[in-house]
Amino acid sequence: MSPMEIALEEARAAARRGEVPVGAVVTDAAGQVLSRAGNEVEARHDPSAHAEILAMRAAAALRADKHLEDATLWVTLEPCAMCAQAASLFRVKRVVFGAYDPKSGGVEHGARVFAHRQCHHAPEVVGGVREAEAAALLREFFAARR
Amino acid sequence: MSPMEIALEEARAAARRGEVPVGAVVTDAAGQVLSRAGNEVEARHDPSAHAEILAMRAAAALRADKHLEDATLWVTLEPCAMCAQAASLFRVKRVVFGAYDPKSGGVEHGARVFAHRQCHHAPEVVGGVREAEAAALLREFFAARR
Repeated sequence: MSPMEIALEEARAAARRGEVPVGAVVTDAAGQVLSRAGNEVEARHDPSAHAEILAMRAAAALRADKHLEDATLWVTLEPCAMCAQAASLFRVKRVVFGAYDPKSGGVEHGARVFAHRQCHHAPEVVGGVREAEAAALLREFFAARR
Repeated sequence: MSPMEIALEEARAAARRGEVPVGAVVTDAAGQVLSRAGNEVEARHDPSAHAEILAMRAAAALRADKHLEDATLWVTLEPCAMCAQAASLFRVKRVVFGAYDPKSGGVEHGARVFAHRQCHHAPEVVGGVREAEAAALLREFFAARR
């Protein structure tokens, strides 16, 4: 299974728990999966428990190293400003995301966190990977709640 | 002791642990302290363990409620983009910070997280409270490490 497939699986599992369906995976330089997570905002009463933050924190804890300089963060949705800045602080090499998020994104939209000199490490960014599936998951989740 | 004095105390304690000296406090509508924290980035190998995130997470956990709509976040340094977006997601009412941070700040500088329509809740912001003391702490910390 590709990292983005695993992230999509985490997003589906999050939806089943009543969480906004976003999933994330961290892989190392060899492509090995270091960590995987889905949103846990509701379960933890913690809006900072986005999939990306949980996955990066777990990968860094695994290595007992706060920097993930060889790592790729895979996430089903364009990160918000919080998660984008976190990816910079964890110094991930690359961020690969699924659906673009014009409403709340912070990489290609809004705060554009990596585009300022106050951002001291800007990961490479690849957007739109398995975009349709990631977007459909979110659409179905919110449609069912309306 | 005022909330900002407590935050400064947390910043000093962080410095003694070898952490960048930033401290944060969350107070409720009545001004009661819900939580206090200093940076724990080094101890946890977690760059997302900024004082603000730890304090907001603790306050929300205490109440088992992900939103802190009546709360004020007090922090000795202008929040970075990660912590600014987190303050928005936790829906804190007000952010009061000490020193301005032209190098890495994300509220009055750089990403200016609260200034975009992708930010769905913008707290009131008050900067420069006990600014000189907060800035001196940081200056001394980095001078000693050079």
